[in-house]
Amino acid sequence: MLKGILSVLLVLVTLSSAIGKPDKTTPKKEKRIPQTLSRGWGDQLIWAQTYEEALFWSRSKNKPLMVIFHLEDCPHSQALKKAFAEDKEIQKLVDDDFVILNLVYETTDKHLSPDGQYVPRILFVDPSMTVRADITGRYANRLYAYEPADMKLLLSNMQRSLKFLKTEL
Amino acid sequence: MLKGILSVLLVLVTLSSAIGKPDKTTPKKEKRIPQTLSRGWGDQLIWAQTYEEALFWSRSKNKPLMVIFHLEDCPHSQALKKAFAEDKEIQKLVDDDFVILNLVYETTDKHLSPDGQYVPRILFVDPSMTVRADITGRYANRLYAYEPADMKLLLSNMQRSLKFLKTEL
Repeated sequence: MLKGILSVLLVLVTLSSAIGKPDKTTPKKEKRIPQTLSRGWGDQLIWAQTYEEALFWSRSKNKPLMVIFHLEDCPHSQALKKAFAEDKEIQKLVDDDFVILNLVYETTDKHLSPDGQYVPRILFVDPSMTVRADITGRYANRLYAYEPADMKLLLSNMQRSLKFLKTEL
Repeated sequence: MLKGILSVLLVLVTLSSAIGKPDKTTPKKEKRIPQTLSRGWGDQLIWAQTYEEALFWSRSKNKPLMVIFHLEDCPHSQALKKAFAEDKEIQKLVDDDFVILNLVYETTDKHLSPDGQYVPRILFVDPSMTVRADITGRYANRLYAYEPADMKLLLSNMQRSLKFLKTEL
């Protein structure tokens, strides 16, 4: 009789742990949308994944590198992203003449934060791997910040980085 | 008369350069498929983009990090990717207990290439940021290489990295 109770108990324990397991580990995830490298900054562009990869491409293609630091849940980043992704002239120039990278985490290279680590900020790097700290936006307190209204300035800065490329290299 | 010929010439030159431009710059690209961070190794997983990001997640979530080095056009990488992506047990364990990163370029951290830079290779890193060079595959000449037939070994290595986590930290 005791043996019988024990077996029933054992079955119950086994059952409950079998039932319990799926409950614990499957808060039924909905199907996730695969993350893209573009993160919405231009799905049609070819994005580098890491800074090392971007530097390699920049050197081997002799194209300047544009690094965009941003955060997914920062409204300023989101607004700039929208303007950047919708600006056909910028998207075309990037596609033709730039290596492009967007990062939500800082790199270990301090040269990429000449006046601090904030988002959004955009830095240009020459194929010689020199960070172009001289190419800045319009804000004195955050030299590498851009707003949606600054697309023309960003475009002219992109052209500047290409111009230097031709005259200096 | 000369003036007339000159104007005609000028119009022709303008025309031809206007016609020439689109021809040169629009070798009509087909619409590109946005690049994914998963690169086919598991679209449903949450992938880190860079090694810095992965280390940050590993520390803050106290989960071991799995780094997969591969190349898009390497047949061994492709075969391993297929086996990895299709292995439900591995995908679930990664999703529950690991931070995951796949890279097609080497990092600057030499600890991630204890016996050289080859693909495919898989390395485990503890949340304490220690590369677990002791967790190896079955090939003496390439300690961190895996083949599609090694999925059981990879799974047990994953479990090993979790076990050490519990006993050591």
